[in-house]
Amino acid sequence: MLHEDRLFPAEQKMRAIARRLYDGIKDLPIVSPHGHTQAGWFARNEPFPDPVTLLVQPDHYIFRMLYSQGISLEELEIGKTPVAEPRKVWHLFASNYYLFRGTPSRLWLDYVFENLFGLTERLSAKTADRYYDTIEAKLREKQFLPRALFERFKIEVLATTDSPLDSLSDHKAIRESGWKGRIVPTFRPDPVVDPAFSGFSENVSALGELTGEDTASWRGYLRALASRRQYFKSMGATATDHGHPTAKTADLSKSKAEWLFGKILEGEADEEHQELFRAQMLTEMAWMSLEDGLVMQIHPGSVRNHNAQLYTRYGRDMGADIPGPTDYVRALKPLLDRFGNESKLTIILFTLDETTFSRELAPLAGHYPCLRLGPPWWFFDSPEGMRRFRLLVTETAGFYNTVGFNDDTRAFLSIPARHDVARRSDAGFLARMVAEHLLDEDEAAELAQDLTLGLVKKAYRL
Amino acid sequence: MLHEDRLFPAEQKMRAIARRLYDGIKDLPIVSPHGHTQAGWFARNEPFPDPVTLLVQPDHYIFRMLYSQGISLEELEIGKTPVAEPRKVWHLFASNYYLFRGTPSRLWLDYVFENLFGLTERLSAKTADRYYDTIEAKLREKQFLPRALFERFKIEVLATTDSPLDSLSDHKAIRESGWKGRIVPTFRPDPVVDPAFSGFSENVSALGELTGEDTASWRGYLRALASRRQYFKSMGATATDHGHPTAKTADLSKSKAEWLFGKILEGEADEEHQELFRAQMLTEMAWMSLEDGLVMQIHPGSVRNHNAQLYTRYGRDMGADIPGPTDYVRALKPLLDRFGNESKLTIILFTLDETTFSRELAPLAGHYPCLRLGPPWWFFDSPEGMRRFRLLVTETAGFYNTVGFNDDTRAFLSIPARHDVARRSDAGFLARMVAEHLLDEDEAAELAQDLTLGLVKKAYRL
Amino acid sequence: MLHEDRLFPAEQKMRAIARRLYDGIKDLPIVSPHGHTQAGWFARNEPFPDPVTLLVQPDHYIFRMLYSQGISLEELEIGKTPVAEPRKVWHLFASNYYLFRGTPSRLWLDYVFENLFGLTERLSAKTADRYYDTIEAKLREKQFLPRALFERFKIEVLATTDSPLDSLSDHKAIRESGWKGRIVPTFRPDPVVDPAFSGFSENVSALGELTGEDTASWRGYLRALASRRQYFKSMGATATDHGHPTAKTADLSKSKAEWLFGKILEGEADEEHQELFRAQMLTEMAWMSLEDGLVMQIHPGSVRNHNAQLYTRYGRDMGADIPGPTDYVRALKPLLDRFGNESKLTIILFTLDETTFSRELAPLAGHYPCLRLGPPWWFFDSPEGMRRFRLLVTETAGFYNTVGFNDDTRAFLSIPARHDVARRSDAGFLARMVAEHLLDEDEAAELAQDLTLGLVKKAYRL
Repeated sequence: MLHEDRLFPAEQKMRAIARRLYDGIKDLPIVSPHGHTQAGWFARNEPFPDPVTLLVQPDHYIFRMLYSQGISLEELEIGKTPVAEPRKVWHLFASNYYLFRGTPSRLWLDYVFENLFGLTERLSAKTADRYYDTIEAKLREKQFLPRALFERFKIEVLATTDSPLDSLSDHKAIRESGWKGRIVPTFRPDPVVDPAFSGFSENVSALGELTGEDTASWRGYLRALASRRQYFKSMGATATDHGHPTAKTADLSKSKAEWLFGKILEGEADEEHQELFRAQMLTEMAWMSLEDGLVMQIHPGSVRNHNAQLYTRYGRDMGADIPGPTDYVRALKPLLDRFGNESKLTIILFTLDETTFSRELAPLAGHYPCLRLGPPWWFFDSPEGMRRFRLLVTETAGFYNTVGFNDDTRAFLSIPARHDVARRSDAGFLARMVAEHLLDEDEAAELAQDLTLGLVKKAYRL
Repeated sequence: MLHEDRLFPAEQKMRAIARRLYDGIKDLPIVSPHGHTQAGWFARNEPFPDPVTLLVQPDHYIFRMLYSQGISLEELEIGKTPVAEPRKVWHLFASNYYLFRGTPSRLWLDYVFENLFGLTERLSAKTADRYYDTIEAKLREKQFLPRALFERFKIEVLATTDSPLDSLSDHKAIRESGWKGRIVPTFRPDPVVDPAFSGFSENVSALGELTGEDTASWRGYLRALASRRQYFKSMGATATDHGHPTAKTADLSKSKAEWLFGKILEGEADEEHQELFRAQMLTEMAWMSLEDGLVMQIHPGSVRNHNAQLYTRYGRDMGADIPGPTDYVRALKPLLDRFGNESKLTIILFTLDETTFSRELAPLAGHYPCLRLGPPWWFFDSPEGMRRFRLLVTETAGFYNTVGFNDDTRAFLSIPARHDVARRSDAGFLARMVAEHLLDEDEAAELAQDLTLGLVKKAYRL
Repeated sequence: MLHEDRLFPAEQKMRAIARRLYDGIKDLPIVSPHGHTQAGWFARNEPFPDPVTLLVQPDHYIFRMLYSQGISLEELEIGKTPVAEPRKVWHLFASNYYLFRGTPSRLWLDYVFENLFGLTERLSAKTADRYYDTIEAKLREKQFLPRALFERFKIEVLATTDSPLDSLSDHKAIRESGWKGRIVPTFRPDPVVDPAFSGFSENVSALGELTGEDTASWRGYLRALASRRQYFKSMGATATDHGHPTAKTADLSKSKAEWLFGKILEGEADEEHQELFRAQMLTEMAWMSLEDGLVMQIHPGSVRNHNAQLYTRYGRDMGADIPGPTDYVRALKPLLDRFGNESKLTIILFTLDETTFSRELAPLAGHYPCLRLGPPWWFFDSPEGMRRFRLLVTETAGFYNTVGFNDDTRAFLSIPARHDVARRSDAGFLARMVAEHLLDEDEAAELAQDLTLGLVKKAYRL
């Protein structure tokens, strides 16, 4: 099912170069500095459940496509625990697998099916049962337990994403277990810095209790955040992550910020003030990052929960987050005016608006010492997405203002598949440059290493 | 003039695959679900006129290019009936034919010249007369009558675009003639739902007379529209089409909508209210589509009649409609909040703002059951336009949320040429995926069929 | 270091065609209609200084990349004259030369190193001294004097960019010297038409003194501008250039314009009025161009001096100008409503917002007789930038609404390198069209000539 030259350019000179470049990186360990796997899996090390609960239910790439073609979420048993008829759902998925032609999900899944489960005939209605039985059986084997897979995948470090209110007990349990797998948390403060987050004011109170600070005061609130950052850092965290609707930043006077925080806490802030507060908090976080050394990731630009009916019935993360136009040049200016020239600060920018790659992001990252560009995100974590990213960014920002690959996944099994797609894409991209004599092959080989490991470790301080 | 491998990738492995894929679809019948040919041609079945009246005068792709290079519309006798000196105009066109290098017009015209008229030496000042004489002579032959060409082109179904005020008498005449060619109307209500359309209020009155409804009342107006839709449906229509300046939709309360309609009818509505009315009418049309099953096409984003002087002198459709940035994510939300999850509704979205393909349209169509993406439109109905469309859309929305090709043309003779460009482009695109091992060739062959016929018929319910 | 086939497609059929097309244009003279070299170099004909002052210090492409990676401007001695430790700065540059992998700077520099200085081993820490010594020695040779290089580069005409307040004494000195090199000024009125330009009101007074007009009156101000345009024209100028933040134009009544000018002169205009004044001045300049025949270049869309701290310390042009979204369709309408249909007027549009190429600029230039599209600008003066430009523009506007290449450089030595990249890129682009049978090779060869010389001379009236 998997051709050894997949994703390489068809032209034979380029393909030969791509192969050589890929051979130099394909067996390197995986560094995964940003993702959404659960530390609990590795703390408990219990078998993964049935194929549907493992592969279909939690993957919004998969069920959004099926849903878009008229298959209901009820039929797919989305949100139901445990799944009542997993084999029936699996059949529905299998007989619609052709819908994924041309999508990265197809690439990732085929990789998992063949390399992990030894399945080599394409998934379809016809092969559905064989697939189901094989996967279900394998999942009961010892070498399919989370820790065994982690080792088999050669993961050097894996970052999770966590609320400041999380006790990180699973991370603690892993450390105390004596198991050597390096799993680190990431500080994602949205629940306590975004006034539009559900439960915001309760979250701020909980933050106060957790830290012993008076989070009803601006000063105490900031101290509480700094304290949780310290705690995350002590548990291995090297980065924070910020998923705001826009990239807007602000640099208010202390008194103005204090007044705004009061307004927010009283629950009287309108949308504009909420946006201003998030904007101010990005700058506060940058300031703390400069102090404690945590790398800052900014992930703006998604209109969350666009489908009102689905949100009412199913809640967040139902595949209905839709990107919109995103401004960086004006939005980031307040933060950059204050901290832009700090070469000790690292801010990694992501986007869902590809028009900003060549127009805004590459020019910004090619100038400001604190800025780096994150890999193509979400819908663009795909062969063509990666190609466009490199084509639009490299000539202005070079390779060295980028930070290698993020798998950004909830789907643990797909991690090697995703890194493999990235490595193949990089090899193909560099091969074209070599074939067109824009780079020598020794440089391309060095770059391939840097993109796979060097830049990731450096940017994320791992 | 026409190379048999034109538009296929140059690399030989890919070219061989493209050839095989193209061979499987090149002779399939043509389904043309959206265009601007005239039913009257087929009703009357009279010879097409001289080369200029047929090929130059009505084609704004052609005269806009000549005009941009300083050739006046007077010299080209645009808008003059009959053309006074067709041979002179033809010479002007022929000696400037080099301007079309690299444009799709060149591809379409060469196809028509060679395949229809047997001309194989490139058009230029030197060959102008030979072209003129040959074309003029052929047009008098019986096999060049509209119905004969329709059959020769293997057109299975051809949709026209029509005002709700049109009696569809030509369509009726075709049916009554006993000729078997399937020509169906499309319901394009802009003249009676867009308050900025010239003659809007007279149009609304005429709609009332035509249907026997009181179109001075909101209720009667809606009933009149529903009634015309029924009439179009009875004449074979399967779709509606909406050419609004933006994609804005609204979902007003009944009383608010009624109030707004009154304001519009009184002629007192400002631009904002006119925009709101169009927005509301899209949602009303979606509601009616859910009732009567007509597929809805939305074509937003053109700043019409940008050239003020030309508009004053020549009126609409003078090649001076210029695209602008278009928002879909926020604009469509009111309609989608109401009907987005209806899998029985089909709304086909088009765009002139390619930045929305990967950022908004593919994520929307890859989620909402009612949404499908129309093919690249207008300026993007071209080899590179098609390539970008597939590259930007496929990884997120797949192939199956798209609807195949529309030729969208007024130029009947160019229909086979345009479908051939689309088929070759698809074959080339799929060939690359096969050569890079993203698809197996049997899947690509199936996709080629689906893109050519299957998806078109399904989406347009033909 | 330089492969003879660099920048050509790897696929062998295309490469062979590209080579043939390139062979037909590679030795053509250079016409450079837009750039930022200094007439003084050729007036005085003194040796260029040391490698750092020549190659590193004035090139913001270079020091912005180094700065983005944490190297301070102090270390690079930016803005320091003379450079205190040029060899030390050179070493810093050399050991970070790998950062430029994949950027056009790398292409240009390698070309200069090899073709001008005979250096064939890649620049690095190891080769830094050899480079420094070689370049320094060569710069003292007679054939490296500015005029000798001008002739060696086969420059047919070179345009500089100049303030209306410039006496053009260097241009005069060149003419009077009897040397035959054709160096012409370009009228860049930003200092006297942009109220936000530093020293604006002093500049307007100086303009009055220079011309003997009363520039405190609207009428006198316009007469003074017309008079300086005449002077520039008499010194060989064929074009003007306008670097406004946006493309906004206006067409105010005479009395409104007069009132606005008064407000501006009083220093009481807010940002909105300043923008309106710039907008009005574009239309006034178009009117004067129609009178005196100077070609108009519009370069909008850069947020200048984005880095506030750097601007305070170092001033303008520190690599911190960042593009933003740019509108053309609505912005240009007032000017186009007035002059758009004048085929005797030439307005060349540039952009830093690539999203406008297919959406706005190609449709506009493919219609309005006065409009032409300038080559990809600034960050997009690169192989991929050029490829995207052609891919996005050609199908709608053709080749003949574009104007060939601008090197736009301050770096005199890089001029042949930049034109060579453009010629190779064009050859590669055309080769693909030939290989895919969209053009015949004789047409491509003609186009290659036109893109290199014909269209440049025609558009710039050189």
